[in-house]
Amino acid sequence: METGASLLKKGETSKEIYLLSRLQEVGHESDTPVEERLGLHFDLTVPLSRYVVENSGALAFPFKRWQIQKVWRGERPQEGRFREFVQADIDVIGNGDLPDHYEVELPLVMVAALERLREYGLPKATVHANNRKLSEGFYRGLGLTDVEGVLREIDKLDKIGADEVAKLLVSECGANEDQARACLELASLTAADGTELAERFDALAAAHGITSEGETAESYALAKQGLDTLAMIVDEAAAIRPGSVIADLKIARGLDYYTGSVYETFLDGAASLGSICSGGRYDNLASQGNKKYPGVGLSIGLSRLVSYMLHTAGAHASRVSPAVVMVAVWSEDERAASNRIANTLRSRGIAADVAPTAAKLGKQIKYADKLGIPYVWFPGQEGAGDEVKNIVSGDQLEADATSWEPDTVNARQTVVM
Amino acid sequence: METGASLLKKGETSKEIYLLSRLQEVGHESDTPVEERLGLHFDLTVPLSRYVVENSGALAFPFKRWQIQKVWRGERPQEGRFREFVQADIDVIGNGDLPDHYEVELPLVMVAALERLREYGLPKATVHANNRKLSEGFYRGLGLTDVEGVLREIDKLDKIGADEVAKLLVSECGANEDQARACLELASLTAADGTELAERFDALAAAHGITSEGETAESYALAKQGLDTLAMIVDEAAAIRPGSVIADLKIARGLDYYTGSVYETFLDGAASLGSICSGGRYDNLASQGNKKYPGVGLSIGLSRLVSYMLHTAGAHASRVSPAVVMVAVWSEDERAASNRIANTLRSRGIAADVAPTAAKLGKQIKYADKLGIPYVWFPGQEGAGDEVKNIVSGDQLEADATSWEPDTVNARQTVVM
Repeated sequence: METGASLLKKGETSKEIYLLSRLQEVGHESDTPVEERLGLHFDLTVPLSRYVVENSGALAFPFKRWQIQKVWRGERPQEGRFREFVQADIDVIGNGDLPDHYEVELPLVMVAALERLREYGLPKATVHANNRKLSEGFYRGLGLTDVEGVLREIDKLDKIGADEVAKLLVSECGANEDQARACLELASLTAADGTELAERFDALAAAHGITSEGETAESYALAKQGLDTLAMIVDEAAAIRPGSVIADLKIARGLDYYTGSVYETFLDGAASLGSICSGGRYDNLASQGNKKYPGVGLSIGLSRLVSYMLHTAGAHASRVSPAVVMVAVWSEDERAASNRIANTLRSRGIAADVAPTAAKLGKQIKYADKLGIPYVWFPGQEGAGDEVKNIVSGDQLEADATSWEPDTVNARQTVVM
Repeated sequence: METGASLLKKGETSKEIYLLSRLQEVGHESDTPVEERLGLHFDLTVPLSRYVVENSGALAFPFKRWQIQKVWRGERPQEGRFREFVQADIDVIGNGDLPDHYEVELPLVMVAALERLREYGLPKATVHANNRKLSEGFYRGLGLTDVEGVLREIDKLDKIGADEVAKLLVSECGANEDQARACLELASLTAADGTELAERFDALAAAHGITSEGETAESYALAKQGLDTLAMIVDEAAAIRPGSVIADLKIARGLDYYTGSVYETFLDGAASLGSICSGGRYDNLASQGNKKYPGVGLSIGLSRLVSYMLHTAGAHASRVSPAVVMVAVWSEDERAASNRIANTLRSRGIAADVAPTAAKLGKQIKYADKLGIPYVWFPGQEGAGDEVKNIVSGDQLEADATSWEPDTVNARQTVVM
């Protein structure tokens, strides 16, 4: 929960916000101004910023944190778009300033995390990076002043295509057709290394009269600042993990709070899924008086990613229960003996369940099978030793709860393709 | 999120519910009936019941699940009472029926979990168990019919004391003074074993004319059913973990959905904290047509427990950062070399951070110290080997990132008393 004032601090947002009211207040919700009402956070960055400002005296800066938590958006639920979902965020926040090496380190942390999921069927992920200063400098150099408006329309490229975006740039952002075409040309620019990026950008800028001289000098200088950071990012990333980050100048991030680098991440062969990991640098989100806490962060949309892995990438849970072994129960009077065996196994780190009822043995085994538990343990009766049956292979052997180890192949809890 | 209909399914609840409305709907919230609005769950049991009914065809019963998640209650926040907090729940749900051995196994799982926290300063926890059938049979045997009302008042005993509860039983529940006193006598009954419990209960019941004969036969039979289960629970628990569960007949659980066993858990010397782990058996919460899914579950109020451990029991985090070692950076041009060392350490499972800036070495060490990182790594320069300094002891030794191991005492992340 956050106050409405905190959620709406940055003014208009592209996110749909849920407000809360107590059941007792139904019919009187509007008595409280939105700013004073409580709402659910629509991301993990706005609450982080509030937290950093409130606790700045106690934190060591640069402050790094990860957070995996639910967020809520008041949208119509549909395939890949949830009202309630889990995000996994990493951010670094500085006090006053923040070195730009974090702008390459943070996307690489996410790439490393996503790379670990490839053995479960996730395709290769590539971070597409852009820089708002680069875009803003270019737009201003063209003579466009509604920078936020242009970014908002460019953000729609993947959804509605270049022709529709061009029309919107003209109708909504005061662009003429040449300016609109130039914005689309910039958006079509990609590069895998810094030199290539600088050459292409300079050629495009020059073609539209944006240079370091004359009237466009200030706009060009702003664009150049963004260009240099972006070039550094792709080159450093290529040195550490080749092919993980490319410059892609259509990345806009709509109405978000970013002020420099912006990132989106796409999976090979899954363009329709959209970005699975997005973020950027935000210099003005957290501030108090004239103190600023600039940050860089990225967020994985975990629910959507897991949904994709299960429904499209072919990952599935190999069994229902985490238990490796189920101890059978001969009769309810002997349940205590079965419990003791299970407790002995558990104390050795072996997850054990006990049969729910002293049903016929076949029914107990069927229950273990339904839960995907690979072993059933038979407590010894009348002085005989215990035995354990691998219900996958059918093998049954004598066993002692103080020393028995499951076969790792059967006992492993895996998510297989 | 749940629908209002789901949250209010069991009618009146003692929990304060938050309803949601989209920012765009402000002023029009009341257009939608409460049942169709979305709300935040106030516990994890109501959503579990909905889940079980919706997925009954796909689940293997008895269905066991644990869940650690936030819940919300629209209350005035105060010490130990939060609006937004984390609960840790375990439940077992049966299809049609559920063996009563789960009524002793589940509280013992919670006791085992709480026992593990004793090394971090948590006092001994004792589960106090009662049974609603026992209470209801006794109240009805006395001639009282507003059983829910009596339970609600008895639930206030710890807060307002016996005299005030007696007054409320008379004014709110139609009890006369004798009946009120009898209810309080029942509530004062405790026992550590089943035989003692049965003897004390029978003596009290007989003193108030409640016996297995005549007019009170039906009420007595109901009470006896609860008594037998409760006696089984304390005896079985005593056999497995002596002193972990006692019968305490004042436990009522207010307006909750329990139908049999009820549990509250108290910490030695922390009575004012109230119950840190509560639950019970609920036979009617999940149902569909004439199918019933009876359950037993308990919930730890994790936020309150952690708050107590940090503020009263003396637990604290031993350091701020999970990193064991911080790699120093000689100059920004040499940051890549420091990154490589950190990555080598990380690939070996050693959590490593890299200095945020190539500041003077003293400043870098101070940063590590502020984060509680015990080691600072110095990359070798001009052909020399790397060295690592234990900034707690001051020892500095040659080290190789491919083989170095931190001293376990310094590297361990612990919560100490």
